[in-house]
Amino acid sequence: MTTPNAEGSETEPKPSDSTIGPNGREARAADGSAIPTVHIREVRQGKKPGERYVRVHRPFHETFREAGPDTLVARQRAYAPRSKLGRSWQGIRRFLIGVPLATSQLAHERLSKVKALAVFASDALSSSSYATEEILRILVLAGAAALSLTLPVAGAIGLLLAIVAISYRQTIKAYPLGGGSYIVSKDNLGTWPALIAASALLTSYVLTVAVSISAGVLALTSAVPFLHEHRVLLAVSLVGLMTLINLRGVSESGTIFAAPTYLFLVTAFGMIGFGLFRIATGSLVPDEAATAAALASWQESGMVEALSALLVLRAFAQGCAALTGTEAISDGVPAFKPPEWQNARATLTWMAIILAALFLGISYLATHLGIIPAVDSHESVVSMIARSVFGDGALYYLMQVATMLILVLAANTAFADFPRLSWFLARDHFMPHQFSFRGDRLAFSTGIITLGIVSALLVVVFNADTHALIPLYAIGVFVAFTCSQAGMVKRWWTRRERGWHYGLPVNVVGALTTGAVAIIQAVAQFTHGAWLVIVLIPIQVIILRRINAHYMRVSDQLAMEPTAEPMRELPDPILVVPVPGLNRAVGRTLSYARALSKNVTAVHVTDDLEEAGALKRRWKEWGTDVPLVILESEYRSLNGPLMLYIDALAKKDPSAPITVVLAEYVPRHWWEWPLHNQTALRLKWALFFRPNTAVVDVPYHLVR
Amino acid sequence: MTTPNAEGSETEPKPSDSTIGPNGREARAADGSAIPTVHIREVRQGKKPGERYVRVHRPFHETFREAGPDTLVARQRAYAPRSKLGRSWQGIRRFLIGVPLATSQLAHERLSKVKALAVFASDALSSSSYATEEILRILVLAGAAALSLTLPVAGAIGLLLAIVAISYRQTIKAYPLGGGSYIVSKDNLGTWPALIAASALLTSYVLTVAVSISAGVLALTSAVPFLHEHRVLLAVSLVGLMTLINLRGVSESGTIFAAPTYLFLVTAFGMIGFGLFRIATGSLVPDEAATAAALASWQESGMVEALSALLVLRAFAQGCAALTGTEAISDGVPAFKPPEWQNARATLTWMAIILAALFLGISYLATHLGIIPAVDSHESVVSMIARSVFGDGALYYLMQVATMLILVLAANTAFADFPRLSWFLARDHFMPHQFSFRGDRLAFSTGIITLGIVSALLVVVFNADTHALIPLYAIGVFVAFTCSQAGMVKRWWTRRERGWHYGLPVNVVGALTTGAVAIIQAVAQFTHGAWLVIVLIPIQVIILRRINAHYMRVSDQLAMEPTAEPMRELPDPILVVPVPGLNRAVGRTLSYARALSKNVTAVHVTDDLEEAGALKRRWKEWGTDVPLVILESEYRSLNGPLMLYIDALAKKDPSAPITVVLAEYVPRHWWEWPLHNQTALRLKWALFFRPNTAVVDVPYHLVR
Repeated sequence: MTTPNAEGSETEPKPSDSTIGPNGREARAADGSAIPTVHIREVRQGKKPGERYVRVHRPFHETFREAGPDTLVARQRAYAPRSKLGRSWQGIRRFLIGVPLATSQLAHERLSKVKALAVFASDALSSSSYATEEILRILVLAGAAALSLTLPVAGAIGLLLAIVAISYRQTIKAYPLGGGSYIVSKDNLGTWPALIAASALLTSYVLTVAVSISAGVLALTSAVPFLHEHRVLLAVSLVGLMTLINLRGVSESGTIFAAPTYLFLVTAFGMIGFGLFRIATGSLVPDEAATAAALASWQESGMVEALSALLVLRAFAQGCAALTGTEAISDGVPAFKPPEWQNARATLTWMAIILAALFLGISYLATHLGIIPAVDSHESVVSMIARSVFGDGALYYLMQVATMLILVLAANTAFADFPRLSWFLARDHFMPHQFSFRGDRLAFSTGIITLGIVSALLVVVFNADTHALIPLYAIGVFVAFTCSQAGMVKRWWTRRERGWHYGLPVNVVGALTTGAVAIIQAVAQFTHGAWLVIVLIPIQVIILRRINAHYMRVSDQLAMEPTAEPMRELPDPILVVPVPGLNRAVGRTLSYARALSKNVTAVHVTDDLEEAGALKRRWKEWGTDVPLVILESEYRSLNGPLMLYIDALAKKDPSAPITVVLAEYVPRHWWEWPLHNQTALRLKWALFFRPNTAVVDVPYHLVR
Repeated sequence: MTTPNAEGSETEPKPSDSTIGPNGREARAADGSAIPTVHIREVRQGKKPGERYVRVHRPFHETFREAGPDTLVARQRAYAPRSKLGRSWQGIRRFLIGVPLATSQLAHERLSKVKALAVFASDALSSSSYATEEILRILVLAGAAALSLTLPVAGAIGLLLAIVAISYRQTIKAYPLGGGSYIVSKDNLGTWPALIAASALLTSYVLTVAVSISAGVLALTSAVPFLHEHRVLLAVSLVGLMTLINLRGVSESGTIFAAPTYLFLVTAFGMIGFGLFRIATGSLVPDEAATAAALASWQESGMVEALSALLVLRAFAQGCAALTGTEAISDGVPAFKPPEWQNARATLTWMAIILAALFLGISYLATHLGIIPAVDSHESVVSMIARSVFGDGALYYLMQVATMLILVLAANTAFADFPRLSWFLARDHFMPHQFSFRGDRLAFSTGIITLGIVSALLVVVFNADTHALIPLYAIGVFVAFTCSQAGMVKRWWTRRERGWHYGLPVNVVGALTTGAVAIIQAVAQFTHGAWLVIVLIPIQVIILRRINAHYMRVSDQLAMEPTAEPMRELPDPILVVPVPGLNRAVGRTLSYARALSKNVTAVHVTDDLEEAGALKRRWKEWGTDVPLVILESEYRSLNGPLMLYIDALAKKDPSAPITVVLAEYVPRHWWEWPLHNQTALRLKWALFFRPNTAVVDVPYHLVR
């Protein structure tokens, strides 16, 4: 449909068809608005001289919605895969990960205090299932007498927990939008401390997954011993499962978290309460024979040590694993129902009280019942306590299942925290930008996959052994605590906001205590694995720093002032087409090259001049005006002579970009891939490093 | 220097500078020859109307030698790497593989019979070091009495060797240019039998490496037992070393081979001769206690079987490993000094006699001395014989070293044979074409690397255990023998050449015997590993066939008749430039795109319309005439909306090729790579599958 210029114009543009405007670029639709560039204008000469018809196509209409001039919104089907391979891959992804979500579907559930406790506290609360055992396993090295120190050590850790919790109450108020250690340090202390906190946290998130999953598997294998030898496989499978679940984008749904967390609280407090009741009524007495046997097994193992201050410090350091996860609430303040910070504070207080009660309760029962893991036992201390208290019945198994579930949940929180911190770091250009892309399901896929792989490796290397992982674990957490608390101290001091007379000393105590504990961790656990973390954190900091420096350099180089740097006019590009012979793919590639430029040369590299002669004859028969140059390569290398030829070409006009046009075969089946394009790939790799050289891939789709 | 058209032309073109010719394309040098396209013509308007100057550049002169019009020969420095990474890589390669060789340096040393025996017979002769042991290890399962069958079984194998050798004497005469089983089968029987022979041979070359290296390591660990537990590492290292050596392109240098082969012959015959002498003089008597102890160890192991025909057949089948490598000489006839076929025949006869003497001599000594490996012994039978004969002194160690060396040489022949057969197959389009490329050192690198990897895997999977590998080994060899002999039968029958009355029956006997042995191998060893080869050979044949079918389809599609299919004129290409924002890299990419075509559109895909608005304002400030289209992508996918946009663009003129121009960052350091181009890579992958769509990579070299 073509309509003359001034008259007969339509008032309503028809879908996917034409609107009319006056001559050329200034075309306007009937309603007077500019015709957007997303429409295609076709100008024809009318019958009268000077009369022109303008026909406007709207080819995008079927698949895009127009959101303004030059702005198209892709409809859902834009995301359908095209190739067979793509469709199969999408099928697998849909099955595993689910259908994509639109960015606008990104919404945060606001959590009540009850749900928030479940979401944010699972990591901290679950620590109670292994912290006591870690203390016991150190003290037992110095024999029965040393075990009497279990409760004092646990008490000291309880005190530490109180200090940390009170300190973080300050952070919550100061950072109602979420105050992770990285944010607080960056805000108040600058880049270096922030990166130290970030590295410490990244390390400890990886360890959270490894430790929690290993402990969760231990809870399972304590109840079902024959699974013990498959523990690594079980743990790795769980990590894999959690990676998948998180790629699906489990939001921190309170409902999902509430059930296992409260199940654990009920069963654990049930165990402690019932245990205390049975002890009070005299129906539960220590199994002294078992205790003696376990002690003897340690004596025989040859691992005994004298009781020393260092040993007690190590017991304390190991037990500090109970505090991991405490900072989670201060990270997630915005997820609370209003008034956010007040609700978050209350939840933190409750969490600390519950955790202390669990930890001290379990420690008391273990001490009172004389429960000591034998040197080669594969049963957890909590499992031994539960067996003593509940007997070998359903309640015992419920306790083990609840323990396992909350530990898996605890690992899951790392799957939310690690990618989020990576996103912060990527946004600030400290980590590769891929970490800032949201996947189909709005989850930060790169971070999730990275965490899954690294923690699975850790589980394999450490044989899913919680006790071996713990010495690496708490140090990162306490380094992050210290950075965060020190940041708060600085903040109070410089801002002198209302309440600073109270807040400052609280955070000073917090910073000094957590700092001291970090040093204790480093010293007492150094030879037991902490050295690895002490080495890794600075390396990570340097890597983050260097990534940042690189991105900054790049952004400096790329930054441009539009008005000061108008688009450059380049001379005509010189096109070079390497040809292996003369066939349809070569013919098509040359046609394409000629459509781009008049300056095209075909180049044939060979070590066989006879064959080259035959090609020249065929070329002449073909009658193309594209000249053919033969390069003889005595060393059979294709790339070398071609690169040199390009160098020589470039000498005449160094500013003219050289363009190499390559035919690439697209086979119909994936298994045919290794049969093609090997040479082109190597050539592309070589050309990639040559300045001022572009490469054009002209795909030739094989139809059979 | 610009000189007018008709006058003042130079008689000698100066290096790297100008020659002069008349207007445009018809330019001729002073000596009347056409000016080649490898020179660059520059045409200028003279002062008088119609007067034109033509200046001819020879920019290629410095780096190329001119070998004719339009033909350049790259000078040595064409092969120098350019990037820092490339230089390091080249340094490593030069160190490991050596400097490149020109194709013209490909030359064959002509071998005397003495050297030829060393080169071609190491594989066959080395088999004598394990064949006897394999017979013993089967017969011992039926107890002491069964062991008396060792010599009869060895005798039968000797007879078989005679039949095979006489048969191959015919092949050598018929195929003076080399008659491997693949060639002979293809020539006479057609494609299917040829592919069966080829698959059987490829399999057996891999096994030659695995078995010989494992046996070589066994010779070493027999002498130095504490190395036994490192045998897999040793064997894999040896395979790696041989891969490297062969990538350097060890030609079949007679001198290198001669020393170890003749050392082995001297020590082995020395051992047999000295052993017989000591037996004759009564100074060497069987150690009956050791024999009884070894027999008892088998009794206790619970692996005993009754003596049965099947067991004897298994012993025979295992012992047939002695025949592997026999066909090597018929493969390499052209390497002999003239008269080639006569020398080759003589060498084959000598080889068969020597092999038979070694094998029967070792078998006799083993039987007479009552040497039986204990069930869990890690010492080879030849080592036990040598220890008995020579005592524990220097001669014993010399024997072990000689055995190890010849076994390593035997593996090395497979490194020559496998790539050569792969080359034949690639030339006939049955294997990927990469297998036909010669590397820097004229060696077929792909074949060598493939053989190295596969045989190393085999060594690892089979724990470098010769006894476990042998049942897989001989079957492939005998399948290939059978194909080759059957081919000879067919040849005699159809050609009736001189001597066919003698040759035909010889090859009929050869074909029937080797065929029967192949069936015995398959049946007797089926459950001991032969099933794997029986399954693999047909699978390989099918794969080779399908690769061939694919290449044939492709070549049909690509074949063109130059006179019938002139070059097509394509409409102007449509260029699409995805832009992440506006920076210098984008500016440069757009300049480049505009130099290629007037029809360029920049496309910005985003899920943030506010940011898109800001970009539009900057774009307007910039004042380019390239229109900017915004695509809003609610699902954050870049590829989906872009592909849909291209589809819509393509609707208007489906014949116009769409070209997507992408900026790619080239960082200065390799470790910066993961920080860039992730998005471009994914987009390129998606575009690769879209028909009629070319992709241009415009590299942006980061300078800092």
